[in-house]
Amino acid sequence: MELKLEMITCDVLIIGGGPAGGVVAMTAKNNYPDKEILVIREYEQQLVPCAIPYIFGPTLGSSEKNISSCEQGMKMGIKGLIGKVEKVDIKEKTAYSDHHAITFDKLIFATGSTPFVHSALESATHLKGVFTIPKNKILIDELKTYIEDKQTITIVGSGFIGIEMGMELALSGKKVTIIGGSTQVLKAAFDVELAHEAEAIIRNAGIALEMGDYVDTIVDNGERATGVQLCSGRVIDSEVIILATGYKPNTSLAHDAGLKLARYGGIWVDEYMRTANKDIFAVGDCAARREFITREPSKVMLASTSAAEGRTAGNSLYKLEYLKGFNGTIAIFSTVIGDTVFSSAGLTEDQAKCACIDIVTGTFQGMNRHPASIPGATKQSVKLVAMRHSGQIIGGQIIGGVESGEMINLIGLVIESKMTVFSLLSLQIATQPLLTSAPTSYPLVKAAENVNLAMQL
Amino acid sequence: MELKLEMITCDVLIIGGGPAGGVVAMTAKNNYPDKEILVIREYEQQLVPCAIPYIFGPTLGSSEKNISSCEQGMKMGIKGLIGKVEKVDIKEKTAYSDHHAITFDKLIFATGSTPFVHSALESATHLKGVFTIPKNKILIDELKTYIEDKQTITIVGSGFIGIEMGMELALSGKKVTIIGGSTQVLKAAFDVELAHEAEAIIRNAGIALEMGDYVDTIVDNGERATGVQLCSGRVIDSEVIILATGYKPNTSLAHDAGLKLARYGGIWVDEYMRTANKDIFAVGDCAARREFITREPSKVMLASTSAAEGRTAGNSLYKLEYLKGFNGTIAIFSTVIGDTVFSSAGLTEDQAKCACIDIVTGTFQGMNRHPASIPGATKQSVKLVAMRHSGQIIGGQIIGGVESGEMINLIGLVIESKMTVFSLLSLQIATQPLLTSAPTSYPLVKAAENVNLAMQL
Repeated sequence: MELKLEMITCDVLIIGGGPAGGVVAMTAKNNYPDKEILVIREYEQQLVPCAIPYIFGPTLGSSEKNISSCEQGMKMGIKGLIGKVEKVDIKEKTAYSDHHAITFDKLIFATGSTPFVHSALESATHLKGVFTIPKNKILIDELKTYIEDKQTITIVGSGFIGIEMGMELALSGKKVTIIGGSTQVLKAAFDVELAHEAEAIIRNAGIALEMGDYVDTIVDNGERATGVQLCSGRVIDSEVIILATGYKPNTSLAHDAGLKLARYGGIWVDEYMRTANKDIFAVGDCAARREFITREPSKVMLASTSAAEGRTAGNSLYKLEYLKGFNGTIAIFSTVIGDTVFSSAGLTEDQAKCACIDIVTGTFQGMNRHPASIPGATKQSVKLVAMRHSGQIIGGQIIGGVESGEMINLIGLVIESKMTVFSLLSLQIATQPLLTSAPTSYPLVKAAENVNLAMQL
Repeated sequence: MELKLEMITCDVLIIGGGPAGGVVAMTAKNNYPDKEILVIREYEQQLVPCAIPYIFGPTLGSSEKNISSCEQGMKMGIKGLIGKVEKVDIKEKTAYSDHHAITFDKLIFATGSTPFVHSALESATHLKGVFTIPKNKILIDELKTYIEDKQTITIVGSGFIGIEMGMELALSGKKVTIIGGSTQVLKAAFDVELAHEAEAIIRNAGIALEMGDYVDTIVDNGERATGVQLCSGRVIDSEVIILATGYKPNTSLAHDAGLKLARYGGIWVDEYMRTANKDIFAVGDCAARREFITREPSKVMLASTSAAEGRTAGNSLYKLEYLKGFNGTIAIFSTVIGDTVFSSAGLTEDQAKCACIDIVTGTFQGMNRHPASIPGATKQSVKLVAMRHSGQIIGGQIIGGVESGEMINLIGLVIESKMTVFSLLSLQIATQPLLTSAPTSYPLVKAAENVNLAMQL
């Protein structure tokens, strides 16, 4: 029987319905309301990626509570299609799925990322009891069901996802071990002295944190995984092993279509998220990124970055309107560990030194409310990293309360705008007893003062 | 008996120990560690000014919990003296109190502000039961003691202090009426549609909110105040009347010393907080301010502004080190009403129109967590005000959760740095389910998109 493909025509075809794809679609529709915009994605239900860890504990408790809505896009007149694109013919401007041949004028790859597993452990991923954390509701539900009656869980990886998962599972009464290959948790975002504060909270939650030891092999009984053997020789028994060892760009479709890939496998794009072919764009985790300061290829994958790229692409599809582009990725992270918020923007002191940047740092510890007797007031620490000679701020880290989640975005803007420490010294801010630290000892400004003093040494 | 004055010599004399004076002292000591710095202030115990309303309700409950500590300053080697400066001889570089003659090289006026009362009501302030809200522990304690056994309290003024006081008193079980002369509360910071949301929360807390009606006279029974008569003729019976009708610069000392005052009575200063005499500075509420955008004289009095001025002055005492100065005051406010945070930076739409600025606005309402099923998630609305032609952001208002207290500081920085809406369109930010709105619909960026679209109409 010959398969008959349904022919579809659109102006803008977006492959992928995650944060990047969704934002491209909405931005494009806002900017080019007359264009027919079509998003094709594999699954009916799409998870909010950053909240996946919270499915596994009391915070959300269910993947049903973590569905990304496309209601707004539909209201705007964006078309949607469920299907898997198998092939793209760039010359013919046509994408093919099992059932459709879709012609387009502009094409956007927003195919995201899939879990990265070290080659040594790859074969073990087929074992019963071994899981990764894909952004796929069906597989996430499988994992959730599997662990329901299990007690011991080992998480491999001490990045944001590993720790957020671990904390939620510990809150659900599981016996959790986290294996971190590095000497500290959250190495991508925090210097060691801040990471140690995170580690204390994690251990205090009852999690066994094994740092500086790699998984050598996953042990099994022929039927299912039973634990991990570490490089040090130690064996940790475990009913479930979750590999939270990062993600890699999902670019086989783009590669097969002849697009150039950059180091780390992302699709090469310019500052407006265009490939060498001005009608083909890539955004989100599948696009290659460069670190804003060092200009080195970047492995950072964040939904917020993806959304920002999506806005640039969606605006730039048919014309360039403002000189912004996406001049490099600034890693801006935040997370909650216990009741404490850890947030970070730009380079850590350690990363800056590795990149041969001559830096000074300034730190300050205060309280996040004022006076300190305000109920719920907690510590707020700020660390700033600046170029010694120019005073340009290239990184910042905060430990504090909920407010730190937005405070770090101010540091992000300072980095993105290439501002110096002098811009911070008499920064005009709002302070309020129930919301912020005191105006007289606002830790961000006090840390800047300490940077300024250090520059003069 | 002839009074013998104790002679004291210092390099830098600061008159006033509030937020501005304290910050000048610490910044000066950091920048000029060899200088002898002396702070003279009237009272041993100084209140944290912004938290005064919280003394009157469950949040703090006592002025003892709201004392500004000078421990850090003392540790740094800053000297303190309790006394009231009665006269300053600028030529002789000497300040005189009852007991001291203090010679200085640099002098900083940080004499703050005192309650402003409309002339029509001024005579009534001597009545028993009528109070203002001075930044003075002794008087605040008197007010607190007086209202303890009273039930009905009328607050005149619907600005931040009036509303914060009113909400705390209502939480303590008092029957509170707030009289606002304007047609909306918080007119200095919010446009009417946002103010209406605040008013609903205030009324819901059991407060009688009488807007658009002025107090004509304070009614008394010959012994104590018994209520207020409004211009409409209505009489509101009340055991206590609190006048929360703003503050005025406390500048008689500076005026007597021959310094020039600006409109609204503040001490005239340049961008580095210097008076015409380069050895005499003024900072905080006693210094004249100009609005950042309109360049008009500004009545804004905020501890955060005072602290920023203090940093500029403290750094600039003996040399100018960086080209920053204090190029106009941006009003950046935040407060909590019920469980909702209201914050504002720069000009409102209304203020901008009154200042003949050709503007566009953009608004967006989302949630402050993502997905919306995250426990505790609430609405987050952002309104941006931009110049129509240049796209420069000149104002922003947010209604949301605790995070809005710091989010508004990002808008403040955008205004201070003269950034355009284009800087916001692909802003790089951190988003996290438990801390922020979704990357795909971050209200600040979505509001910027709506500004951008409005500019093209």
